[in-house]
Amino acid sequence: MPFARTALSHRRFFSKTASLSRLDFSLAHGTRLAHTMRPLTPSDLNPAVIDVQYAVRGELAIKAEALRVQLENKFHGLPFERIINSNIGNPQQKGLDQPPITFGRQVAALMEYPPLAEIVKDIWPADVLARAKELRDEIGSVGAYSHSKGVPLIRKSVAKFIEERDGYPVDPEDIFLTGGASAGVSLLLNMLITPTKSGVLIPIPQYPLYSAALAQFSGIPLPYHLSEVDGWSTSLHEIRAAIEKAEKDGAHPRALVIINPGNPTGALLDWATMESIVHLCEEHSIVILADEVYQSNLHSPDTHPFHSFKQVVRRLNSPVPLFSFHSISKGVTGECGRRGGYFECTNISDEVRALIYKMVSVGLCPPLSGQIGVDCMVRPPQPGDPSYPLWKTETDCTHAALAQRTKLMAQRLNALPGISCVTSPGALYLFPKVELPDAALKEAERLGKTPDTLYSLELLDETGICVVPGSGFGQKDGEHHYRLTCLCPGVEEYVDALENFHLLFMKKYGAIN
Amino acid sequence: MPFARTALSHRRFFSKTASLSRLDFSLAHGTRLAHTMRPLTPSDLNPAVIDVQYAVRGELAIKAEALRVQLENKFHGLPFERIINSNIGNPQQKGLDQPPITFGRQVAALMEYPPLAEIVKDIWPADVLARAKELRDEIGSVGAYSHSKGVPLIRKSVAKFIEERDGYPVDPEDIFLTGGASAGVSLLLNMLITPTKSGVLIPIPQYPLYSAALAQFSGIPLPYHLSEVDGWSTSLHEIRAAIEKAEKDGAHPRALVIINPGNPTGALLDWATMESIVHLCEEHSIVILADEVYQSNLHSPDTHPFHSFKQVVRRLNSPVPLFSFHSISKGVTGECGRRGGYFECTNISDEVRALIYKMVSVGLCPPLSGQIGVDCMVRPPQPGDPSYPLWKTETDCTHAALAQRTKLMAQRLNALPGISCVTSPGALYLFPKVELPDAALKEAERLGKTPDTLYSLELLDETGICVVPGSGFGQKDGEHHYRLTCLCPGVEEYVDALENFHLLFMKKYGAIN
Repeated sequence: MPFARTALSHRRFFSKTASLSRLDFSLAHGTRLAHTMRPLTPSDLNPAVIDVQYAVRGELAIKAEALRVQLENKFHGLPFERIINSNIGNPQQKGLDQPPITFGRQVAALMEYPPLAEIVKDIWPADVLARAKELRDEIGSVGAYSHSKGVPLIRKSVAKFIEERDGYPVDPEDIFLTGGASAGVSLLLNMLITPTKSGVLIPIPQYPLYSAALAQFSGIPLPYHLSEVDGWSTSLHEIRAAIEKAEKDGAHPRALVIINPGNPTGALLDWATMESIVHLCEEHSIVILADEVYQSNLHSPDTHPFHSFKQVVRRLNSPVPLFSFHSISKGVTGECGRRGGYFECTNISDEVRALIYKMVSVGLCPPLSGQIGVDCMVRPPQPGDPSYPLWKTETDCTHAALAQRTKLMAQRLNALPGISCVTSPGALYLFPKVELPDAALKEAERLGKTPDTLYSLELLDETGICVVPGSGFGQKDGEHHYRLTCLCPGVEEYVDALENFHLLFMKKYGAIN
Repeated sequence: MPFARTALSHRRFFSKTASLSRLDFSLAHGTRLAHTMRPLTPSDLNPAVIDVQYAVRGELAIKAEALRVQLENKFHGLPFERIINSNIGNPQQKGLDQPPITFGRQVAALMEYPPLAEIVKDIWPADVLARAKELRDEIGSVGAYSHSKGVPLIRKSVAKFIEERDGYPVDPEDIFLTGGASAGVSLLLNMLITPTKSGVLIPIPQYPLYSAALAQFSGIPLPYHLSEVDGWSTSLHEIRAAIEKAEKDGAHPRALVIINPGNPTGALLDWATMESIVHLCEEHSIVILADEVYQSNLHSPDTHPFHSFKQVVRRLNSPVPLFSFHSISKGVTGECGRRGGYFECTNISDEVRALIYKMVSVGLCPPLSGQIGVDCMVRPPQPGDPSYPLWKTETDCTHAALAQRTKLMAQRLNALPGISCVTSPGALYLFPKVELPDAALKEAERLGKTPDTLYSLELLDETGICVVPGSGFGQKDGEHHYRLTCLCPGVEEYVDALENFHLLFMKKYGAIN
């Protein structure tokens, strides 16, 4: 085999020169000088990629991961025994307490291995078996690619779910299933951002997926500030000002991102504000991107209900183009790892929809496991179904635990010196503001870090609790926040740790005695 | 509730004006003229998106979908009873015959619903239960986000798999699990394409993911032709010529895409060619993207073995940066719907790897279902394990059926007038060349379609078999091919249909009597 000889001679050649540096090597073999490989460095890469920031899995999360490895050593020398990842809305992660919903998991197990039906037919509820059979008859194997927009039957189920939620008809062809909401957001931003100074209005604070995708696709972020003193409300005045500023700067506002319920704020939009936003977007021909992934995380639905933008747009009979996102990662399903979600197109022409289809087809299809998760989320067991009582208990518990923890955490944080925290009526987070002592600001400056990063790093070092500094979401100059999830089990003990740390921190930097 | 009143008044307002066109409406309400929404049209979108082409799910696939719906009508009037999707390598799709591997599916079912272990503990093999327990201890719930690069244990398993394949050590930190190989390819092309006329060398014919991603990220495709007369071999001369042409045109060749085993050609690279390619890329500081997703689809491994680029690069002790892709969608696993795969970084600095990590973290994590699929692919049952005999039978059957079908299809296609077909030693496809009669070329021109599209559309209309025209992959001017998968069950009947159609087509357009 001639190639084996060639390989061998190369090996000999390289082992002879192994002690020479690359440069020595090139000099010693003049004829190979032109062959010297330039290594791949960050400066060779797309500069847009360098600009991307994503704090949720940034410096804090990376350090937390390193500490987790350190904890595996019995003599770890750390003042805590475990890492609590409050940096990410990941309800089913190890150590947290949101259990998956049994109905969806039994259906999923049957889809993975259909012969299981024979084994569990007298053990598992009949509606589980029936749902799995229905999905199997439609899909066949979960190992096959589905339609690139998602399984037609599941898109029909989504359409029905939205119809029942909003009271307006939905065309299943307007539904695109996705691998989590993020995949859809990223694709649509890539499509909406043109090379002609396209701007996208984003709330501040925002979920950093938006700023990251804007950096990646070279779109211009057009920030509008939410009002913390007013419960993180959205102000038309702020959006209008952001549009005017963009137009003055020569940028074209193409789209408006609204996160409702808010992330990281937990705020809920009221109907009147939503109407005004729709009118404003009509006026300026702006596409609405409605991130509604927390629509079922409502802690006081009677006083703070959720309204979808779809419903507002339809009731106003507005022609404004709207993309609405939902996900199985949040809510009471909390199935982040399956990567399931969808977006709905409203007032989008067939032509544009065909282009979206083309783009999703390059990625082949969303994961079937996520698609099945979507089906179970939008078609849960109904009263009278054998799985209903357990489903009801499971989802009620999850709702109640989240609401109770959110309330308690906000109360106790608010009682601390130098912390104020808007009590959030929705989503999974709190976004407390911290008044940092001058000495802490100076120390942060010395370390070349933002002050909220200093605070969050010391919190992690002292307690093992990983949060995300407010600078990752955006905040007003001179203000300092952090985002933490309300998913922790043992909330009393957890808040004790937050409190103790805060008081020590304030003492250390001379704000209290 | 004030907002309800507002909504109502808007409804009345719109229903009063419902009979007016948008323009009439604006004229009748002068003050609202500025408010008239411009609808979202394709010309408002990122022009790069408009340029994207993806033939595998293009015109033919869309028409096949419409025909499938038509077939549901008892009086469909079509000359066939079912659609055969030979356009896409989707082994587990309905109507095809590649069954999933039992071991992986039983593990997956246990991961979905861990209490199932109690039910099946005396029914399912012990190694299935042990693997599921091991993965569960590491992962926790499949409903949780994993590390953005993938579950550490599974990355270690991948590293070991590659070590055993190639004989060189692998750092698990160089492994990124992905949602299928496509997700990784797309991300890395986005990172490698800079705004300064970045070019990427792609084979012609190629898998259209590459041309689609280049269009999406505004990279310049630098085609190099494979040699059909030489069994679709890769010629250094062609690659060198493409580099020289690029440099003359002011483009910078950043990366070289190699698909091995080839898609759509099924060709395998020999070691000597691979060595030369590595040297050439070193010489020009070009990154290699090695698409090796068909590495286990080998029809005659003794005479046509697979070598990984990783092994060549290591044996040459080459510093060339290399990204190697693998997937669970092909091979004998064929688990397309799970969306699982990985890429390995070779000669990539920590700094660049950290940037890749940042980018994948924005997408949170690959689907857990796909990650578990990767684990079962790279760690299959071993001789002596209770699942081994069944696993061996299942995988042997799949290999044998694919090899036998590929050989038979190529033989019979080659026997037809006007068709020549390279017998492929790997992958899942054939890419026959068709000499089309002048009358067919004229008819295609009249219809504004490429001649291979005309041929493929008529094939679909007559037989229900959906293939992809060669123009979707690229071919020399004046040549016409199509790609079809070798996944069909009942291969004799299937080839009969291809033959009958071809002879009728050639008669219809006057090439034979």
